[in-house]
Amino acid sequence: MSLDPARLQPMANAIRALSMDAVQAANSGHPGMPMGMADVATVLWSKYLKFDPAAPDWADRDRFVLSAGHGSMLIYSLLHLSGYDSPTIEDIRNFRQLGSPCAGHPENFLIPGVECTTGPLGQGLAMAVGMAMAERHLNAVYGNDLVDHRTWVIAGDGCLMEGINHEAIGLAGHLKLGRMIVMWDDNNITIDGTTDLSTSENIKARYEATGWHVVECDGHDFADIARAIDEAVADERPSLVACTTIIGKGAPNKQGTSATHGAPLGAEEIAAARAELGWDAEPFVVPEDILADWRSTGEAGKAAHAEWQAKASTDSSFAEFSRRMSGELPQGGDAYDAYIASLIETKPKVATRKASQMALEAMTSALPDLVGGSADLTGSNLTNTSSTAPFSADDYSGRHVYYGIREFGMAAAMNGMALHGGIIPYGGTFLVFSDYCRNAIRMSALQQTRAIYVMTHDSIGLGEDGPTHQPVEHVMSLRLIPNLLVFRPADALETAEAWVLAVKQQDRPSVLALSRQNLPAVRFDDEMKSAQGAYRLKSADASRKVVLIASGSEVELALACAAALEEQGVGADVVSMPCMELFEEQDAAYKADLLPADALKVSIEAGSTLGWERYTGTDGIQIGLDRFGASAPAEQLFAKFGFTADAIVPQITNKLNG
Amino acid sequence: MSLDPARLQPMANAIRALSMDAVQAANSGHPGMPMGMADVATVLWSKYLKFDPAAPDWADRDRFVLSAGHGSMLIYSLLHLSGYDSPTIEDIRNFRQLGSPCAGHPENFLIPGVECTTGPLGQGLAMAVGMAMAERHLNAVYGNDLVDHRTWVIAGDGCLMEGINHEAIGLAGHLKLGRMIVMWDDNNITIDGTTDLSTSENIKARYEATGWHVVECDGHDFADIARAIDEAVADERPSLVACTTIIGKGAPNKQGTSATHGAPLGAEEIAAARAELGWDAEPFVVPEDILADWRSTGEAGKAAHAEWQAKASTDSSFAEFSRRMSGELPQGGDAYDAYIASLIETKPKVATRKASQMALEAMTSALPDLVGGSADLTGSNLTNTSSTAPFSADDYSGRHVYYGIREFGMAAAMNGMALHGGIIPYGGTFLVFSDYCRNAIRMSALQQTRAIYVMTHDSIGLGEDGPTHQPVEHVMSLRLIPNLLVFRPADALETAEAWVLAVKQQDRPSVLALSRQNLPAVRFDDEMKSAQGAYRLKSADASRKVVLIASGSEVELALACAAALEEQGVGADVVSMPCMELFEEQDAAYKADLLPADALKVSIEAGSTLGWERYTGTDGIQIGLDRFGASAPAEQLFAKFGFTADAIVPQITNKLNG
Repeated sequence: MSLDPARLQPMANAIRALSMDAVQAANSGHPGMPMGMADVATVLWSKYLKFDPAAPDWADRDRFVLSAGHGSMLIYSLLHLSGYDSPTIEDIRNFRQLGSPCAGHPENFLIPGVECTTGPLGQGLAMAVGMAMAERHLNAVYGNDLVDHRTWVIAGDGCLMEGINHEAIGLAGHLKLGRMIVMWDDNNITIDGTTDLSTSENIKARYEATGWHVVECDGHDFADIARAIDEAVADERPSLVACTTIIGKGAPNKQGTSATHGAPLGAEEIAAARAELGWDAEPFVVPEDILADWRSTGEAGKAAHAEWQAKASTDSSFAEFSRRMSGELPQGGDAYDAYIASLIETKPKVATRKASQMALEAMTSALPDLVGGSADLTGSNLTNTSSTAPFSADDYSGRHVYYGIREFGMAAAMNGMALHGGIIPYGGTFLVFSDYCRNAIRMSALQQTRAIYVMTHDSIGLGEDGPTHQPVEHVMSLRLIPNLLVFRPADALETAEAWVLAVKQQDRPSVLALSRQNLPAVRFDDEMKSAQGAYRLKSADASRKVVLIASGSEVELALACAAALEEQGVGADVVSMPCMELFEEQDAAYKADLLPADALKVSIEAGSTLGWERYTGTDGIQIGLDRFGASAPAEQLFAKFGFTADAIVPQITNKLNG
Repeated sequence: MSLDPARLQPMANAIRALSMDAVQAANSGHPGMPMGMADVATVLWSKYLKFDPAAPDWADRDRFVLSAGHGSMLIYSLLHLSGYDSPTIEDIRNFRQLGSPCAGHPENFLIPGVECTTGPLGQGLAMAVGMAMAERHLNAVYGNDLVDHRTWVIAGDGCLMEGINHEAIGLAGHLKLGRMIVMWDDNNITIDGTTDLSTSENIKARYEATGWHVVECDGHDFADIARAIDEAVADERPSLVACTTIIGKGAPNKQGTSATHGAPLGAEEIAAARAELGWDAEPFVVPEDILADWRSTGEAGKAAHAEWQAKASTDSSFAEFSRRMSGELPQGGDAYDAYIASLIETKPKVATRKASQMALEAMTSALPDLVGGSADLTGSNLTNTSSTAPFSADDYSGRHVYYGIREFGMAAAMNGMALHGGIIPYGGTFLVFSDYCRNAIRMSALQQTRAIYVMTHDSIGLGEDGPTHQPVEHVMSLRLIPNLLVFRPADALETAEAWVLAVKQQDRPSVLALSRQNLPAVRFDDEMKSAQGAYRLKSADASRKVVLIASGSEVELALACAAALEEQGVGADVVSMPCMELFEEQDAAYKADLLPADALKVSIEAGSTLGWERYTGTDGIQIGLDRFGASAPAEQLFAKFGFTADAIVPQITNKLNG
């Protein structure tokens, strides 16, 4: 497509007009970035980006990530102008209003052409790394005919200042993800003012130090932008294209200042901008000829899509590839069924982190979609299996990623892989360091990605590493994140069930909280009882007075307490609750049967008690840990903090007698 | 002090011997780092570090941060050998055992000579940045006679790979913190294996790109180490000293491999190491001559301390400086009292973020200890006041820090400032991005630092920015962190009270969750009722049937619900609960009076309901939001999600009649 400025400038100005008009109508939003990057985006969409507006889910499309998500009007403008069904001009008129898919920040679950939800800075770029990893992996497995595309990012100074940026580009540089290109909106402005208020960094040198190719361009010169992108495409390394731009370009009195960043320009400045840009159409109106030019940007991609379809449909792997991209699991789950049967037979006493690896051994062998890794704790998280060779720049077909000490970067990359499709990502770190990647876990939940977090070294059970490493509040705090399943399995069988359930969740992520220490087998049937979130593990022998509710390592303890109570003639049920969220989804009758009103209910979990009153009531007992742990062998810590039958049973009998 | 290897090598080997023996006795721990960095640490403590073992809290001591906290035996060895009272050799024998201050990771609250708690990687280095900022600020305020010291860090590859490292060094480079020196344990090993498994970065080039001076040395050559440190001290920029080392140096068969990182060497290898090192003392025994050499390392610091004391005690600012370093507040709080009185008079309807700035205006004027900032959201968080000029490389006396888009780095720097002493740090970002710095908030709580987090744009009340920016689970999830106060004030008066209370907490941090939107004044007395965490804001007129419990923006709504109920003849109390943790500390009678058993209890908070059953019971009503928000004007969101009296009151009356 021609890069004639006479053609491209009005196209870019259409983005500027829509962006300033929509922000003005909403009386909130961020015009500065879309106006500043309009020229770059116009070149990218006109000449480079491979997309078919009629098929936003085409597997081999290029992925475009607006990491600077506050500039959402840029992507809404691009999608609308280039002919996607969504958003419509009405949607754009209703930017940031209830019911419009044009939300304040772009959301993948509202608009098919939005590849990922952005706004939390740095994460878009880091998710793009995951997308680029997924592309290389699937390319290695399925070949060029099926998978051969690029990942493009628009990022601002904010994305590049966030710590996750360091982790993401370190990973991308190491893995030589040459098909990833970041267009940096180099405008010298952040919210607080000019960038020199808070940074003196030579960003280009930093990227080069991290294995990236760096090229600069004038972000308002179409030919120069194209020259730079051509260089980036030609280079084997991932590329940073530093686009020198003016924030809010086109608004004659405010451009180049932070005043354009996050507030409407105002009627007067918009009028001045219209004059400056020579834009005399009414608000939200794009002249036919300009719209026609925009609509033509999709032609090349449409043709490429047709060509791909023709080749792909004759490929012997196409059915399996399509299954993977659809997110469906293959028929049959014999491998896991056999593994679960073996557990019932062997009743292993193992750490649930080890049980997770055993389950993974079966799962990764049967399910090529699983691509895992660890943030430099492979031997602790036990995320590797005999089916998962290392994923590396030398061999992208590998399925175990050495993520390095980059928890947040790992979690965001997992989101990117899941959003790309074709991969079910899992990744491990210590549960306490879920804090380091917490917002990416939240973004998994918000974006409805099937990311599976293997969080080992649960609770005080890790022992000597002490309070910095002992997650006491983490399990409960992860339960607070909407649309996230948190599993805390009690034994190898529940761990296997957790894995099967997690893999089946097409539209939500899971966290597995797994013990460092060995736990005995507590259940011996293959009824997939974890699917209800909680179930009666032991029924009272004597007349039921007590229901003990426990999870993870404390289920063993609950059974010991129940046994001691029964010895005293006090009937006690034990309910194992590996997943509170799935239990919440059960009907009232199931809940009432499990947690009957006429019994004293006692929760036992080596973590925060706040929240357990939901099941125990305020007249029940909550055994937990509402303080930081300590450094000592695990058994001593459990004793010190009252997690023994000797300490718990008298509290129960006192309450019953009280 | 002489750097004669004949003298220093046995000293360094004493660290190696203690470290491998302690890890072996504990049967857990990390010998590799202490053994690898023993030579570097010996040079640092012998010649450079300014310390007085008899006065670990001497204000003008150099700060030493072991950022690679898993190598805790290094700091325990150094403190013991150089003559600090704690730890004793018995403590070291009981490394990682219950009751020993020699915890798995070094903890500032257990040993006075440990400047900060480390283990969560990257944070030690980032806290050191805060310490170096504190030093420069206090130097600018009080002069060289009172404040003139350096901040030293030992960091490993893990610390340098974490994202927070990027934020921390970006800030330090920008602020030209030339008195900060990082000794990098450049051993090419991480837990998973050699560093080339996960990184290809040129770390030195990256540091240089970020405004740092970089120098290399052979980490096992005493003279070369000293040469490099001399260069670092001479350079005006912060310095990275890349110390080429062999992990586990001295263990002949395992050194240089990840096998030495996090596991005991084993009896056989320890025997081989003793032979290799020529160390024939019994375990935990340090020969007298070597111990004497170690004890002499504190002589220079002791003399420097005496000299400082003589000068300082004649300094006209010494009393005020000492007050600040002690953490005590000045006598009298007239400025806040007057401000609070003015609120009762004027009853302003303002956003609580604005009320926070108004309170800060009074507080920062009266209390020079307050040094604040924002992670590039100054105009949104409203953290600046007329008393707080910018803190910059040109003027370290400023009191408002432009932290840049570095939430985690900011929070860790705040911890460093608080731990340094003399400063009460506060810092702002959006509440949703508490996720980005969550582990540093946890570390504030664990380390008992008075860090104050100004978290604005609470809940769905921020409106159009949508679910990525709407914290629905954050308030409750922060409440789960032990030793942290979470304030969610309802109006300007409660906001002022929250500030007064937060500043008074010498040994715990606070989070203030503050609204973007305006909130009406709801209380009109100066009785500091927030100190009880919750209080009765309105008593029932009709016979009390209902108690409404609310926080923040929902207190106004609770009052509206109560009014509607009273109109129907249903008596309703309203309890405002600005701080759940302080309420938990009240006695049973106070709690029972506020939340009587015979009333229907209804919680209203625009966030997670899990946890509220503690106060409502399971037979109460929890009005909240257990899903992600949406993008729309705030009033529409509150209506959509049921936060109106029209939506809530019928639920209450139905329950009463049900």
